[in-house]
Amino acid sequence: MSSSTFFRSMLTTIADRGRALLRRHGPTVEDLLEDAAKLMPLSGKAPPRRDLPSLCDTLLSGRGEASGVALAEQILDQWAALDAAGQRAFLLDLAYRFGPDPIKLDKAIDAYRAAPGAGTALALHNAAEARRQELFRRLNLAPGGTEAVVRMREVLFRVMADAQGVEKTALEAVDADFSHLLASWFNRGFLVLRHIDWTTPANILEKIIRYEAVHTIRDWDDLRRRLAPADRRCFAFFHPQLLDDPLIFVEVALAPDIPASIDVLLAEGRAPMAAEAATTAVFYSISNCQEGLRGVSFGNFLIKQVVEDLRAELPNLRTFVTLSPVPAFAKWLGQQRADPASTLLAPADKDILAALDRPGWHQDPAVAATVSPVLMQAAAHYFLKAKARGNKPVDPVARFHLGNGARLERMNFLGDLSSKGLAQSHGLMVNYLYKLDDIETNHERYADKGEVVAAAAVRRHLRADAAPDDPKPPKGDGSKPGRPDAVAKRPSPAAADASSPAWPTAV
Amino acid sequence: MSSSTFFRSMLTTIADRGRALLRRHGPTVEDLLEDAAKLMPLSGKAPPRRDLPSLCDTLLSGRGEASGVALAEQILDQWAALDAAGQRAFLLDLAYRFGPDPIKLDKAIDAYRAAPGAGTALALHNAAEARRQELFRRLNLAPGGTEAVVRMREVLFRVMADAQGVEKTALEAVDADFSHLLASWFNRGFLVLRHIDWTTPANILEKIIRYEAVHTIRDWDDLRRRLAPADRRCFAFFHPQLLDDPLIFVEVALAPDIPASIDVLLAEGRAPMAAEAATTAVFYSISNCQEGLRGVSFGNFLIKQVVEDLRAELPNLRTFVTLSPVPAFAKWLGQQRADPASTLLAPADKDILAALDRPGWHQDPAVAATVSPVLMQAAAHYFLKAKARGNKPVDPVARFHLGNGARLERMNFLGDLSSKGLAQSHGLMVNYLYKLDDIETNHERYADKGEVVAAAAVRRHLRADAAPDDPKPPKGDGSKPGRPDAVAKRPSPAAADASSPAWPTAV
Amino acid sequence: MSSSTFFRSMLTTIADRGRALLRRHGPTVEDLLEDAAKLMPLSGKAPPRRDLPSLCDTLLSGRGEASGVALAEQILDQWAALDAAGQRAFLLDLAYRFGPDPIKLDKAIDAYRAAPGAGTALALHNAAEARRQELFRRLNLAPGGTEAVVRMREVLFRVMADAQGVEKTALEAVDADFSHLLASWFNRGFLVLRHIDWTTPANILEKIIRYEAVHTIRDWDDLRRRLAPADRRCFAFFHPQLLDDPLIFVEVALAPDIPASIDVLLAEGRAPMAAEAATTAVFYSISNCQEGLRGVSFGNFLIKQVVEDLRAELPNLRTFVTLSPVPAFAKWLGQQRADPASTLLAPADKDILAALDRPGWHQDPAVAATVSPVLMQAAAHYFLKAKARGNKPVDPVARFHLGNGARLERMNFLGDLSSKGLAQSHGLMVNYLYKLDDIETNHERYADKGEVVAAAAVRRHLRADAAPDDPKPPKGDGSKPGRPDAVAKRPSPAAADASSPAWPTAV
Amino acid sequence: MSSSTFFRSMLTTIADRGRALLRRHGPTVEDLLEDAAKLMPLSGKAPPRRDLPSLCDTLLSGRGEASGVALAEQILDQWAALDAAGQRAFLLDLAYRFGPDPIKLDKAIDAYRAAPGAGTALALHNAAEARRQELFRRLNLAPGGTEAVVRMREVLFRVMADAQGVEKTALEAVDADFSHLLASWFNRGFLVLRHIDWTTPANILEKIIRYEAVHTIRDWDDLRRRLAPADRRCFAFFHPQLLDDPLIFVEVALAPDIPASIDVLLAEGRAPMAAEAATTAVFYSISNCQEGLRGVSFGNFLIKQVVEDLRAELPNLRTFVTLSPVPAFAKWLGQQRADPASTLLAPADKDILAALDRPGWHQDPAVAATVSPVLMQAAAHYFLKAKARGNKPVDPVARFHLGNGARLERMNFLGDLSSKGLAQSHGLMVNYLYKLDDIETNHERYADKGEVVAAAAVRRHLRADAAPDDPKPPKGDGSKPGRPDAVAKRPSPAAADASSPAWPTAV
Repeated sequence: MSSSTFFRSMLTTIADRGRALLRRHGPTVEDLLEDAAKLMPLSGKAPPRRDLPSLCDTLLSGRGEASGVALAEQILDQWAALDAAGQRAFLLDLAYRFGPDPIKLDKAIDAYRAAPGAGTALALHNAAEARRQELFRRLNLAPGGTEAVVRMREVLFRVMADAQGVEKTALEAVDADFSHLLASWFNRGFLVLRHIDWTTPANILEKIIRYEAVHTIRDWDDLRRRLAPADRRCFAFFHPQLLDDPLIFVEVALAPDIPASIDVLLAEGRAPMAAEAATTAVFYSISNCQEGLRGVSFGNFLIKQVVEDLRAELPNLRTFVTLSPVPAFAKWLGQQRADPASTLLAPADKDILAALDRPGWHQDPAVAATVSPVLMQAAAHYFLKAKARGNKPVDPVARFHLGNGARLERMNFLGDLSSKGLAQSHGLMVNYLYKLDDIETNHERYADKGEVVAAAAVRRHLRADAAPDDPKPPKGDGSKPGRPDAVAKRPSPAAADASSPAWPTAV
Repeated sequence: MSSSTFFRSMLTTIADRGRALLRRHGPTVEDLLEDAAKLMPLSGKAPPRRDLPSLCDTLLSGRGEASGVALAEQILDQWAALDAAGQRAFLLDLAYRFGPDPIKLDKAIDAYRAAPGAGTALALHNAAEARRQELFRRLNLAPGGTEAVVRMREVLFRVMADAQGVEKTALEAVDADFSHLLASWFNRGFLVLRHIDWTTPANILEKIIRYEAVHTIRDWDDLRRRLAPADRRCFAFFHPQLLDDPLIFVEVALAPDIPASIDVLLAEGRAPMAAEAATTAVFYSISNCQEGLRGVSFGNFLIKQVVEDLRAELPNLRTFVTLSPVPAFAKWLGQQRADPASTLLAPADKDILAALDRPGWHQDPAVAATVSPVLMQAAAHYFLKAKARGNKPVDPVARFHLGNGARLERMNFLGDLSSKGLAQSHGLMVNYLYKLDDIETNHERYADKGEVVAAAAVRRHLRADAAPDDPKPPKGDGSKPGRPDAVAKRPSPAAADASSPAWPTAV
Repeated sequence: MSSSTFFRSMLTTIADRGRALLRRHGPTVEDLLEDAAKLMPLSGKAPPRRDLPSLCDTLLSGRGEASGVALAEQILDQWAALDAAGQRAFLLDLAYRFGPDPIKLDKAIDAYRAAPGAGTALALHNAAEARRQELFRRLNLAPGGTEAVVRMREVLFRVMADAQGVEKTALEAVDADFSHLLASWFNRGFLVLRHIDWTTPANILEKIIRYEAVHTIRDWDDLRRRLAPADRRCFAFFHPQLLDDPLIFVEVALAPDIPASIDVLLAEGRAPMAAEAATTAVFYSISNCQEGLRGVSFGNFLIKQVVEDLRAELPNLRTFVTLSPVPAFAKWLGQQRADPASTLLAPADKDILAALDRPGWHQDPAVAATVSPVLMQAAAHYFLKAKARGNKPVDPVARFHLGNGARLERMNFLGDLSSKGLAQSHGLMVNYLYKLDDIETNHERYADKGEVVAAAAVRRHLRADAAPDDPKPPKGDGSKPGRPDAVAKRPSPAAADASSPAWPTAV
Repeated sequence: MSSSTFFRSMLTTIADRGRALLRRHGPTVEDLLEDAAKLMPLSGKAPPRRDLPSLCDTLLSGRGEASGVALAEQILDQWAALDAAGQRAFLLDLAYRFGPDPIKLDKAIDAYRAAPGAGTALALHNAAEARRQELFRRLNLAPGGTEAVVRMREVLFRVMADAQGVEKTALEAVDADFSHLLASWFNRGFLVLRHIDWTTPANILEKIIRYEAVHTIRDWDDLRRRLAPADRRCFAFFHPQLLDDPLIFVEVALAPDIPASIDVLLAEGRAPMAAEAATTAVFYSISNCQEGLRGVSFGNFLIKQVVEDLRAELPNLRTFVTLSPVPAFAKWLGQQRADPASTLLAPADKDILAALDRPGWHQDPAVAATVSPVLMQAAAHYFLKAKARGNKPVDPVARFHLGNGARLERMNFLGDLSSKGLAQSHGLMVNYLYKLDDIETNHERYADKGEVVAAAAVRRHLRADAAPDDPKPPKGDGSKPGRPDAVAKRPSPAAADASSPAWPTAV
């Protein structure tokens, strides 16, 4: 009602300002020199890059309080004008010159050791905080500051990719500060869920096209097919400060049952169904949009919020499920096939799987029928038995959904016949089931006890003689094929690691 | 345009949710027990209060990641149901049980001492962080979480007011964590400036009435007189998460020149002028609204933003000035009058000022004419010579505006004839001038060198023989009456303190 | 979603422009002369009023097409500057100089008579249209034109009130053209229903206070009590061109049953109920706001739309009912009491009713108990038997609700103890029931057959020997007390008249 | 501010409802029969089409007042379900059964003749009004009614295209009623001007692509090039009831001077200029969108409003000009070339123009240089001398802009090299200049005196011996080449016709 529209219109300022900032032409070097000259009359000849740390010092000083907004704008303008070398130099400055003050830190340690307590611990905490943390907060005074900080971290990633040794470590500390701050700023409590549909502004939709990371959106017609039909939905998280730029989005298909094939789901000629008649909501693509927010977890919250919203809108929906890629399967299977000592694949199996190397194998029904049981058995092993670091499943998408409390519900042979799908998983797709009542328990079983919660339909594909868990099968795992909702136990989960849903770009 | 309206409508979700939360009836104790029982089957008999720390532990654990939103909501619901004793107990739990882990901290100190560097410093910083910081961040997952945290701090203030000794210290550490977090969340970059006028929703306007802290708004008609006329403006900062609740607001009068009297400015029968004809914008009331955000600085940013916006809207405006109260003057003058050793007031002066004790003295022109020179001379001393802690001016409003870089422009005898005005300052009001070009210099002079930047018109009131500064006048202060923009130098400003604009509730 | 917000923001232009227009200072006579001089260089000396018809002629000419917006603005500006005499003169100009062209009309009649057909009828229709109709449409080119036309009609009403004879007839023709055009412009299809609540902008709320015509809203606190509680609602129709100005609004109370007393309903100290628990929605005040839209019917559509919206929001609502005043009852009863030949009131009845003339009679329970049966019997007669013009009920509010298809459900003795309530109806209030399924039938029975559809509870109050209908009782009316939903038949309804819901200002 | 956002949000209802209507599945024939049966129990077997006139009669009756919204919805639903034959039959019903009542009309004529006066003229006007006018107004009670009426007229156009004789005349009368009503409903006062840019919702943008009628928009990238760059603008008129569907739009290029070539203006690789640096706004495409609003004039208002808005946004803009097609030139020139008696083209000219028949002629510089003077001379004749019906210029786009008060400013040889441009005008384009100060005078000269207001640069192309005007040149036309702003006089303009700006679909 009126108040919420009042509230909405409140936000215009941000949008206007942010947009103005984006529109602004980057300052020329002359501008920068002139600006710098005004501010620091004694060092007028210094090149802009060298000014940046000084400006940052000023911003951190008391003087920064009186003219903080202008200073922050100036710093961001100069940063925006830097070339790659200048950016690298400034990021190293952040690493070396804007860490914690070692002398103060030493004193704070001494004080704490002398009298451990709330006050001295707090002082220690403050002394150990890198000065760049406060710097980042003050850069946020400038219009567009939040986005600028996110973009700065993207540059940091590029610089880190080439860094080595001490420099890499130093830059990693910078990244840790970025990460800490951005996790606070992009806390779920500040995010806004929005429907994306065919009435969404074009400048946002073109970002959906660009950011889609699972099943490429070819053009605007393709986009329209994913947004406009009555049985399609799309939801995205936005942040008030990142105008017109989604953080993460999920594409949803409403369906009469759990789908097995993305090709069928996205077929051009298909007839849409009435949304009210659907019983199943299928999350068939989840894409993180902001590289600069890597590690800040949105997917978990997004899925659960969307489940809630869809249930409220369409009471007939009973099943919430993904149709997901299996990105690491083909590579893993290749290793098994190449491993002469593989206990998983018998030589006969390997012969059968050799068909996978022939282009177009999936179009020959006879070949496909032969490949299917061997491939599905291997896939069951891949999900339920194979282990990556931290005793977690090999598959990153599996780690994400299991960490969210979902259950591996079904594996779909030849679910994705795109060249990408065939290349990364020989066409295999899977469904993860989100059952709200079980999510907490599932998560706990996965996080605390290392179980891969999977439906019987998945376990059934395991070889009859499969060790319940390898390489070190614990005794007495009672899980049998056919038992509903059996799980693959993991002896020693690295709890901290396993418990946090991963941050795959595309899920 | 459409995109910004898209953006605006994005925010509806927050508003709807927040409002829903506020509307929610607090849960009964039975509900709470039942909820608790569901979540913790083994401790179903425990009273709700005791559950809170456990729930908080759960929220901080990995398990919290999977069902964080629900857990955060549950904690906030239980918190909302606590009585005063329960609240106090929980806040003490926060103090004692959710500080940093001393063992981890010790290890982190050892690691840092063994190999000081970016990585170990970062680990130390993390180890020294109180666990409640992360707890607050996770409470923010719940709809309405941000506001709940602000309100929780308001409770903390009440509890702290009664606390003593160790408890007080422990609670102060809790407050430091609140303060740190809220300063980050309520960073100016996240605030939204909005016009408040007669078309603003009534539920917001009634808060303006309630929060006004300088010149009481008596009723809706009084409010209308401050918002509706063409020569009046009002601006407020809002935060996307504190829906319909301003953080700070300023009331502005457009005028043909610098006004000397609030009574004239707010007179009921006055004829408004055309906004375009005004040359002067007068900030005559600034009120902070959220006790729970005490110490988070908004006023400085607000004034400067409003100056910018008004200049853009009304290019004829040339002067930006306050009409401000002098809240500590009468008390300070009383001390002077009572001090037999006062070097400021001669016995004759004291005799004259005795008139101030007679009600209605200001209505007798003869008395007022006699009082005026003595009182103004004392006032000049009060602003330019008298010192409070940290070598700062006695007057809190002066500290705020001087810290912002404003200049003390003029003192107005009998500028406020309300009973409050007469009581706190014998009717004295002053103007502080905001001249954008001078703000930074002024701030520096005040913060770094301890000068009270004041116009000649103010200094002129000093006694001819007044020491340039007391008690320890530095030599050679060249400031003379008549010299424009002369200053009162301060020898040893406590830089850190003096540099931060104060946080008076009302300015 | 975004598209509808796009759509919404589309409308800003109107608002901005309209407001700008309203803000505009009326032009001085000098301005007007100057403007006129520019436009009509040869008649620069003519006084503004005389220019108006010429300007209107220009606007109606082809030349008006090229600069219609500017011309329309100029005419409205000049109109706004007229004094009462000037307004009257211009309205008479409209009557005499902007009717249909009699020569063209004669020719069109001849052409039609010569060859009656679609084409000649259309030409005749066009020729018979007063030129002012097109003039009004072109005035609407100006920003704020729609409102200006509405306000012009308000002036017309004032002028008509004093007019007589030929002038009155001529002005009535002008009003007929206004009425025709405004009915088209304010067609229900163009209206927008909005909730009014405590978050509505203050400038709209103050209009609610001003326009409330049934139960006076004393001040903002009183308003708050009608809008803010969980069991209160208010809805208004707006038109896109009449910004911030409602056309009609209805106040609704949610209740556990059909209420009998407005005093109880609006009691200051009452405890609100949960909206979800209510079974009954009570329309206790309906006020038309725009005198200039007299005769354009909104109330019927408003009530039915609100019933639909409330049913969607609160599925527990089963009963939709009014609590209505009986504005003409006391006057009518006075006539009965004064009529020595009254067949309704026996002398004993008249003696009892004499108590009504004593102030405070209603506070004496004994008196009230004596008065009650006589008064209620008379009231039943008033509603069911007494007749006004067109064989319709005497009571205007009854005519409105019965015309809408509602049923007279219950009469409430001492339902309104305000001085207004006691004065106009001796405290009597009634409930009209809106049952969606019966509305059409009820309307038909009322409109076609002249029945006053009333519940048995109302009829029961009729005297046992009451003629079924007077003055000419048809034989064999089978309606008996106790028979549910019996009706008072009317022999010869003036269908056209009776069928149109009345337009009472307050219902 | 908040009030206008309140106002904006008011409009949501319309959008929601309209959209709901559009989403609604058309009723099946069974549904319709069932509905009809419910409403008219005695005629349950009648096919739906026959019901429509009866339903319309009901809607027009008093009964329609009580349940008008539902009835209107029902009629529109049934209409939407009709096939082409059913639609035609209903439109003929409108023509024959819903005209004026001839008996009432006769009586009204008699009454007027007996006593001519305001009252009888009004009654005559009412009696001559076709009943379908009121029917259309009542159909507008239904959600989406306005759009439905517009769409119904589009069907009427299709039916009229095939109609003949009496039927055609009867349908034309129906169209006249549509036209009259829609001109009132879509009065400029109700329209809203909106910017269209790259942040506009996609469902609106796809309509821009579809409706563009001058220079085809090939795809979304092409659209982006017209909307996103800093030196491009687009504006459209919308109506509150036609959600997401523009009525007319204009595309604007900001430029440093008057452009001569659309190919250059829309070149893919071009570098945008800063909007603030532009001096010239070029209207290079104007498209009417709603066939159902044919004859309702928007273009004139749109151009003038956009000129005003652009001047306010960009004070540096001094020139407002079109870059327009010349759609009838090639056809007219063909006639001249084929006319052996042409006084315009000498045989040598015809030989030169024979080159136009060779594909690719324009790519040969030598050929183009030879063709240019002959073609430009012919074009000058085409604009300044040649006459169509009503003594107006042959070119429809010229008639539109000259009727708006623009001046023919320049002719551009090879301004449009698209196949369409070459086919319709041998590549010729022209500029019309909108100079606000001259618009009224220009319009008057064009409308009243038949002058084609043209710059000297255009007239210069006329043959030296060109008769000032043909076929009947008046004596003493003093216009000479080189004389600025000379005009081609027209002796006897059909004022009524010439004065109304045409309604070309694309300008």
